[in-house]
Amino acid sequence: MVVMANHRRVGLWLIGAFGGVGSTVAMGLAAMSRGLTSTTGLVTAGPTTSRPDFDAPADFVIGGHDIRKSCFKESALGLNERSGIFTARMIEACSPDLQAWSENVQLGTVLQSNEAITAMASSGLPTAKHPREAIDRVQADLKAFQKKHDLEQVVVVNVASTEPPFVAGPEHQSLAALQAALSRVENPVLPASGIYAYAAMDLGLAYVNFTPSFGATSPAMNELALLKKVPYAGQDGKTGETLLKTVLAPMFAARNLKVHSWIGHNILGGGDGRVLNNPENKASKVKSKDASLPAILGYKPQSLVSIEYVESLDDWKTAWDHIHFEGFLGTKMAMQFTWQGCDSILAAPLVIDLARLALFARRQGQAGVMAEVACFFKSPLGTTEQDFFRQWKMFEEYLGRAARS
Amino acid sequence: MVVMANHRRVGLWLIGAFGGVGSTVAMGLAAMSRGLTSTTGLVTAGPTTSRPDFDAPADFVIGGHDIRKSCFKESALGLNERSGIFTARMIEACSPDLQAWSENVQLGTVLQSNEAITAMASSGLPTAKHPREAIDRVQADLKAFQKKHDLEQVVVVNVASTEPPFVAGPEHQSLAALQAALSRVENPVLPASGIYAYAAMDLGLAYVNFTPSFGATSPAMNELALLKKVPYAGQDGKTGETLLKTVLAPMFAARNLKVHSWIGHNILGGGDGRVLNNPENKASKVKSKDASLPAILGYKPQSLVSIEYVESLDDWKTAWDHIHFEGFLGTKMAMQFTWQGCDSILAAPLVIDLARLALFARRQGQAGVMAEVACFFKSPLGTTEQDFFRQWKMFEEYLGRAARS
Amino acid sequence: MVVMANHRRVGLWLIGAFGGVGSTVAMGLAAMSRGLTSTTGLVTAGPTTSRPDFDAPADFVIGGHDIRKSCFKESALGLNERSGIFTARMIEACSPDLQAWSENVQLGTVLQSNEAITAMASSGLPTAKHPREAIDRVQADLKAFQKKHDLEQVVVVNVASTEPPFVAGPEHQSLAALQAALSRVENPVLPASGIYAYAAMDLGLAYVNFTPSFGATSPAMNELALLKKVPYAGQDGKTGETLLKTVLAPMFAARNLKVHSWIGHNILGGGDGRVLNNPENKASKVKSKDASLPAILGYKPQSLVSIEYVESLDDWKTAWDHIHFEGFLGTKMAMQFTWQGCDSILAAPLVIDLARLALFARRQGQAGVMAEVACFFKSPLGTTEQDFFRQWKMFEEYLGRAARS
Amino acid sequence: MVVMANHRRVGLWLIGAFGGVGSTVAMGLAAMSRGLTSTTGLVTAGPTTSRPDFDAPADFVIGGHDIRKSCFKESALGLNERSGIFTARMIEACSPDLQAWSENVQLGTVLQSNEAITAMASSGLPTAKHPREAIDRVQADLKAFQKKHDLEQVVVVNVASTEPPFVAGPEHQSLAALQAALSRVENPVLPASGIYAYAAMDLGLAYVNFTPSFGATSPAMNELALLKKVPYAGQDGKTGETLLKTVLAPMFAARNLKVHSWIGHNILGGGDGRVLNNPENKASKVKSKDASLPAILGYKPQSLVSIEYVESLDDWKTAWDHIHFEGFLGTKMAMQFTWQGCDSILAAPLVIDLARLALFARRQGQAGVMAEVACFFKSPLGTTEQDFFRQWKMFEEYLGRAARS
Repeated sequence: MVVMANHRRVGLWLIGAFGGVGSTVAMGLAAMSRGLTSTTGLVTAGPTTSRPDFDAPADFVIGGHDIRKSCFKESALGLNERSGIFTARMIEACSPDLQAWSENVQLGTVLQSNEAITAMASSGLPTAKHPREAIDRVQADLKAFQKKHDLEQVVVVNVASTEPPFVAGPEHQSLAALQAALSRVENPVLPASGIYAYAAMDLGLAYVNFTPSFGATSPAMNELALLKKVPYAGQDGKTGETLLKTVLAPMFAARNLKVHSWIGHNILGGGDGRVLNNPENKASKVKSKDASLPAILGYKPQSLVSIEYVESLDDWKTAWDHIHFEGFLGTKMAMQFTWQGCDSILAAPLVIDLARLALFARRQGQAGVMAEVACFFKSPLGTTEQDFFRQWKMFEEYLGRAARS
Repeated sequence: MVVMANHRRVGLWLIGAFGGVGSTVAMGLAAMSRGLTSTTGLVTAGPTTSRPDFDAPADFVIGGHDIRKSCFKESALGLNERSGIFTARMIEACSPDLQAWSENVQLGTVLQSNEAITAMASSGLPTAKHPREAIDRVQADLKAFQKKHDLEQVVVVNVASTEPPFVAGPEHQSLAALQAALSRVENPVLPASGIYAYAAMDLGLAYVNFTPSFGATSPAMNELALLKKVPYAGQDGKTGETLLKTVLAPMFAARNLKVHSWIGHNILGGGDGRVLNNPENKASKVKSKDASLPAILGYKPQSLVSIEYVESLDDWKTAWDHIHFEGFLGTKMAMQFTWQGCDSILAAPLVIDLARLALFARRQGQAGVMAEVACFFKSPLGTTEQDFFRQWKMFEEYLGRAARS
Repeated sequence: MVVMANHRRVGLWLIGAFGGVGSTVAMGLAAMSRGLTSTTGLVTAGPTTSRPDFDAPADFVIGGHDIRKSCFKESALGLNERSGIFTARMIEACSPDLQAWSENVQLGTVLQSNEAITAMASSGLPTAKHPREAIDRVQADLKAFQKKHDLEQVVVVNVASTEPPFVAGPEHQSLAALQAALSRVENPVLPASGIYAYAAMDLGLAYVNFTPSFGATSPAMNELALLKKVPYAGQDGKTGETLLKTVLAPMFAARNLKVHSWIGHNILGGGDGRVLNNPENKASKVKSKDASLPAILGYKPQSLVSIEYVESLDDWKTAWDHIHFEGFLGTKMAMQFTWQGCDSILAAPLVIDLARLALFARRQGQAGVMAEVACFFKSPLGTTEQDFFRQWKMFEEYLGRAARS
Repeated sequence: MVVMANHRRVGLWLIGAFGGVGSTVAMGLAAMSRGLTSTTGLVTAGPTTSRPDFDAPADFVIGGHDIRKSCFKESALGLNERSGIFTARMIEACSPDLQAWSENVQLGTVLQSNEAITAMASSGLPTAKHPREAIDRVQADLKAFQKKHDLEQVVVVNVASTEPPFVAGPEHQSLAALQAALSRVENPVLPASGIYAYAAMDLGLAYVNFTPSFGATSPAMNELALLKKVPYAGQDGKTGETLLKTVLAPMFAARNLKVHSWIGHNILGGGDGRVLNNPENKASKVKSKDASLPAILGYKPQSLVSIEYVESLDDWKTAWDHIHFEGFLGTKMAMQFTWQGCDSILAAPLVIDLARLALFARRQGQAGVMAEVACFFKSPLGTTEQDFFRQWKMFEEYLGRAARS
């Protein structure tokens, strides 16, 4: 077809495809390519930014892994009914894409996951003796997807539930050491998130970790990225409370107001809330959320971040933050905020942004960690900058260079 | 005295000296020079900024105008008792300075003010037939102050109550036209705030307008500043709710989230609250508070800013803002914040900052509007930039240049 | 039909039928009689109350007046789409009732209404020379409705938009005086809300005023009610912020905490919000909302109630209240709350409750003002009691007596 | 002296006398008897209640136990400086009483307390082999106090830090069994709070437990109270968040609104906050705070109560509660509140109220548990009623009877 000749077709491979974020990404790409919704929420479509040659919504084909047997439409209908997002009419209109894309989703791996996650898995999940075997299977799935849809590029994005913390050992200090340990059966050298990251990079595919899970955070993985010439980015999408922290803390610093304490309580329902209710998984998240203040303020105020599962909130989240600070002449004052957002709706456009950015970077031959996209992440890789506005300036300058290239 | 030989002595002339902000400025300078309080709240003492050769707290002598007969100590004790700021002990320790400085305060002018302001005036206030006569008297006071204390420089800062709106006419389009009208008795060509501004600039003194009043906002005044080689800055100190608006709105813009409505309700007591309770004076303030959103977002959301006088709050203010915004796929979400601050405590250190900056600029030979200090103001003169972080970057770069000069 | 023989059938005649509240009442009765929704929100179905022989949802036939040509289904679909209440599926299932009931709705009157209301009126609205003529037409509509559906009883409930304030004159001091003035053309003696009230009572039908409009608030109308042996109740449904005031203020009183100020800001969209945006109509509402505190506390704290129209909120409302109070030893403390509710959803079940209560009272032969239902109203008729819990006790005792009767 | 002949003099013996609550009680009684402060905050001085013959502030002499060596004045000055309550002038004026009363305070016991509490104890605290020995010492102190000041009556009120949970065993099922175990050295049969309660009741003194500690909660202690003809009341003063729960939950129940979740986060500093930061002590408190909802609503919503120590808040507390509820037609809505109170200021007047009530009851010959004062407590003894307004009605009726007696 003539039209197709003018278009690259690209693949977006979602780890945890049928979750709230994955399903909203699918709804969003389908609805945008049909002109059923605006690009509101998409940073790469914002009026204030330069725009390099990004892939259009209609250029994307979605696939992915999930540990549950489901489909995008069912997941979208569930979100609509429980959380009031989308409309029944929009889901129906997007149904052809949702159904076609659901067929691209393969069963994933739960290697090294804990009970909070495996409890969600469907029966019949393939097992693997060791990471090497799991990587082989993931790579076979990725190659089949790319071939079947004749995709010029594929980007792999992790939007699965948060894993419990995984501590890197000596095997993660170099690629050689990691590769030597991949077939070890006892005490597997990689958790599920690492397996997907390795599989993607090793195939030369760009990789984005939108979760606080281990993913690609090690010298060994960085070596792999450079070797295979792939760009990668992470980690833990900055969508709500932490975004606000990194926006407000620079103001307190600029005004030389001394923050005594910053208390944040998050309540949320949905699948993400249920997994984070497990203390192990919560630990990964809280750590990621609590790191920004000292980096911005230059000292460590008393701080607390709690995350609690409140079933009735479904996919919605309310964060309450109380900031107690001292101004001139020892006077204590307070700021409080509440943030009432829908997690999937906040996260999905950023996932699409990052997919576009990583695909673009890959085409440009950029390799290794993408520090320029730090403004998207709670724990940005490749930089210690946590101040949102300094991150934003880095990003705008990057886009400007990219648009001119 | 040998010590004095090493030090410039500088004057800070406060219009509205005995108000909450003026008295807190006096308390702050006195307490800092005695080592009784830290520099928390002072931007020019912040850890993140370059520091040119600013005047030290102990270098300052305070004087000013007020329409009430009072003294700094009485005003400070009132703030302590009603609003719980400072301590009785600190006021006592600063008493010598407070009393000496109170003697430098002269009776001011209420020309063109409305009833909300004149109601506060003490009896025996000198009257003037026309602005020219009022200017002469103000200048005589300023010259006497500078001479008596042997001050190298004096900066005039307006911290008086907000005047009703004053509309510039053809007489404000050039200095010549303005000067020709200064002796007009009917329909005086300048309100009180303009008289002080003219008097200061005409004497070659740096001038800062910390209020939304008319002050130095006209081509004629700018001409005067350039002619007399004085730097000036304004207007309307950005201390609380508007500061937060200009910090948060850039985040919504960067994330391409569409703000549908931004509603802000401010409740406050104290003298400032009482004057702002008058619809005319409130109009000046609300206009100043409501301008930032369209400039930052690039479109005008529905917005509302209310200011209400709540007597029991004394010098404290609570702002509640409700921001209703749309994210991806048409989903509406909300952020709310409350800001509980003490107005005088927030404003006073910024007044000291601006005094230091204007004195420094004057020494450097800088003339005309100081657009670089836009981050201190709700309605910055000399720039249309409202985004706090872009303003901050301008300021940091200016300080960097200044520190190297 | 045998089944019908066992059932009374009753009519609920809604003034302002196609508004948000009216349409939600229709949706609610239709959905409850089909078992599609629970009775949550219905006070007369609450677990804690005695339950006399109330009419069941399936016993109701709905009719009414509206100044717009519309239908319940369209109105319900609009609420669903804009405000996210109901589900498309539920509306479809209730469609037969909604359509049949829509045919019972007649064009109403706008006599004495102001522009905020007449702007909504459809063209072709019947006009009347004087109240007498309008009453005749309303009564003809009511009689036709009762006859057509063979209804044992009909209750008339005003859920129309708030009128501007209407001041009673000497003609409202006795029924004779009122009747003598009904045909006066100049300066009509009754506003629209009074016409409906008069029409209903004069026909012997129970009447409920769920709005702050004039309705049945005069000695003349009370005389009419007693003469015609009809019970009536009002006024202004207590659904959100005022409910909370009358719940919280008794606590401050009981604990002898002195309330210095109680500031309440309400933002809402929807049709109600649009009408209340008009200063005249808002005045009626604010007056009704601000009366409860002095009655409960025994003194008048500084208070403020604002209502602002925020288009993007649609049928949702957010109230923010700030309560500043003094405790022991002169210490000032604060409570703040936000209430995020959907106006139609909060009001509709109370309308059904009041319809059931008024129909029951009518059957019991109760005549005149129903002070026992004060807990439903912001400005209860027949009592000065504003404390919700004392009102509740009155109501529980009334239900207990009624259940035993 | 003639004046004395007209006055009873009564003793108020505070366990934990030098803590924030105890010191504020002392300040309050001293300031009220000097006419330096109003009775705001005192329920027994409220305008709405009947007032039996209560003891006047000037009739009280204060004594108590504490595990720290300190004095009321030092404690009050600390509260003033850190938390901004009282004024330096008021403390000075009350100094004679504060110093005289401090001399009545004896060193207490830490038997069975945990490290969070013993860490605060001064050195040289007397030790006891078993509860019997500790009781003997406490009783000797009480008798000496009563004799020295010639007090007609003494009431003992526990305002000490919260103990870890203590589980009653078979020895607490009858007085005989308890008495038999009092001299047991291993595994002491009573914690500190029980020792004070036993000592007081056994001497025939009225007893109030204002804390969630074990105190007098057992059949054995009730037997003792009846035997010795003493009234007692408890437990855990209802001062802030829980008060609001028991005020708001009845509204949700009355309106048949279904509460899905009620999340409460409390942040506080001060001594109370520090002890509650210990998980054991917090457990006692959280249990007490979380019991009211099911009792009022008739079902158990998802609920969470957290208490976190935030040092910078000193004696101030902020509670944030998020209530997610369902209304008509399945619609979910939300209420949120924040409560910013000073713990000592809220608690102290209630302690004085309860002392007056218990002294009055003792004079009237009332023995056993005082269920009528349930409205003062989070976990009221003698009743399961948690609804504040039902409790209040019980209390008002009791006062009415008492005033007539």
